[in-house]
Amino acid sequence: MAEAKAPVLIVGSMALDSVRTPAGEVQDALGGAADYASIAASFFAPVQLVGVVGDDFPQEHLDFLAARNIDLGGVQMIKGGKTFRWAGYYDFDLNVAHTLDTQLNVFADFAPSLPAEFRNAPYVFLANIDPELQLQVVKQVQKPKLTVCDTMNFWIEGKPDALRALLGHVDIAFMNDAEARQLTGQLSVVKAAKALQKLGPKTVIIKKGEHGALLFHGDEHFAAPSYPLEEIADPTGAGDTFAGGFIGYVASQDDISIGTLRKAVVYGSVMASYNVEDFSLNRMRTLTQEDIVARYRAFQEIAHFEALSSAGV
Amino acid sequence: MAEAKAPVLIVGSMALDSVRTPAGEVQDALGGAADYASIAASFFAPVQLVGVVGDDFPQEHLDFLAARNIDLGGVQMIKGGKTFRWAGYYDFDLNVAHTLDTQLNVFADFAPSLPAEFRNAPYVFLANIDPELQLQVVKQVQKPKLTVCDTMNFWIEGKPDALRALLGHVDIAFMNDAEARQLTGQLSVVKAAKALQKLGPKTVIIKKGEHGALLFHGDEHFAAPSYPLEEIADPTGAGDTFAGGFIGYVASQDDISIGTLRKAVVYGSVMASYNVEDFSLNRMRTLTQEDIVARYRAFQEIAHFEALSSAGV
Repeated sequence: MAEAKAPVLIVGSMALDSVRTPAGEVQDALGGAADYASIAASFFAPVQLVGVVGDDFPQEHLDFLAARNIDLGGVQMIKGGKTFRWAGYYDFDLNVAHTLDTQLNVFADFAPSLPAEFRNAPYVFLANIDPELQLQVVKQVQKPKLTVCDTMNFWIEGKPDALRALLGHVDIAFMNDAEARQLTGQLSVVKAAKALQKLGPKTVIIKKGEHGALLFHGDEHFAAPSYPLEEIADPTGAGDTFAGGFIGYVASQDDISIGTLRKAVVYGSVMASYNVEDFSLNRMRTLTQEDIVARYRAFQEIAHFEALSSAGV
Repeated sequence: MAEAKAPVLIVGSMALDSVRTPAGEVQDALGGAADYASIAASFFAPVQLVGVVGDDFPQEHLDFLAARNIDLGGVQMIKGGKTFRWAGYYDFDLNVAHTLDTQLNVFADFAPSLPAEFRNAPYVFLANIDPELQLQVVKQVQKPKLTVCDTMNFWIEGKPDALRALLGHVDIAFMNDAEARQLTGQLSVVKAAKALQKLGPKTVIIKKGEHGALLFHGDEHFAAPSYPLEEIADPTGAGDTFAGGFIGYVASQDDISIGTLRKAVVYGSVMASYNVEDFSLNRMRTLTQEDIVARYRAFQEIAHFEALSSAGV
């Protein structure tokens, strides 16, 4: 990795998740989009995290985040409050999360306010939260080099206008293919991505889970494969980890050229492919830079086919 | 393209299709898996076609096939018989074909018998027909270098044992992801492909439509992207065209190394991406070698991301 200097600002949910999958279960484990994204990004660049927790949020989780070079100066801890909790399960179709319980708790009143020292962040990732809050964050940041947002079907259904307004203020939008179709009304993913680009973001990244990811950048198109995992322990946070790895790598290069964005999609895929191998963020606790490089090389091998000679043979 | 010498034997259905999609419709147009595969393969190698038609099969279709260097010595024309007809439509979800009518006609009694001069074919593609017939063909061919089969859910449900028996006699099996899951009972495509390999074929190619294709070859894994088409006129025959382009390219190289198989998956994808741009086989009537080379290069661009240096940066 290049020497990491430019920090990434990440704003979003911090949570305690109780998850059951065919591979096992966890109770009140570290979760939340901003936690997943921050940990993934932290392998590439320093992270500034903005979120909210209750005073029931275990110190060990704060210690884990801090130990990974994540600045917690933007994390509010509400005295007497309870942390956002999500409980759900996955059956054998790991693409579909079934929610058992959602307790917003202190997250219900989340109004992200950036510490002064975060307002100059060059790289900004707005993890999946209310698009009105995402826009509030955009307005607090001074001239970022790159602003990236994620979202989910809940906001597409509930606040489509606010989401469209937000898209006019970001450089890159992440969505899964169903979300992109839903927001734009286009059945073709290609048309959906182009319709999203017309709303603002020059670059649109479509997450397709086991089918990889697509990047649309101006008229350029890049398709990243997925890693052929035989077993997935827990898909929770895969999209957030993907986005975190992406923006972390971009920040580490301090470059937003298309070549860097393509590599960043692959690094995001690498991080997500590791994260789903274990529950919560547990795989990230032992992941090494060597692991990341090895899997990036595996992606190269997966995607490789020989070029034609200049004669077209 | 390299000088094409080694012929490809293709056995399967020849049909007249009536198809309606959101883009339009055709009546009694040239169709059938063997026709799609043969035309696609013919851009790379000479083809020997084995099939059956009634004497209602238009001469212009036979002329089109013959003009593309397809040897029709194995095509039986049944006097007074009617050609296999399929009628169907696609709604806006072009992944799902809705059948309106199937008339097997002369195809109901198809018992492929290879002309003597076809029995030494080095490359054999068994398009989707009854796996018992596919196995009969395998037994008529002398020492082929590569035998490839396709199938469909109809046979997985109706003749799974015959299909498993066939898989013990082929080198490469094509299936879509749902078929691979259905036959093996494995939800993970990776596990499904490995289970298929255990039944015989060293190489398994999973067709995923808009999500591209996967090749499993021993322990190697290759993922080909799809081409980002904004409009699809008619998806009929896309899988057959993919397989035909694949085997045609392999035959043109007369080589079955993994590097050639990877390129062949891309050439198959190129041919399929063109074919769906128009109804029936109409796009193939004007397609040029230059078109094929141009789109192969487009696939390279779509799949490209920079390698890491030896230092892993």
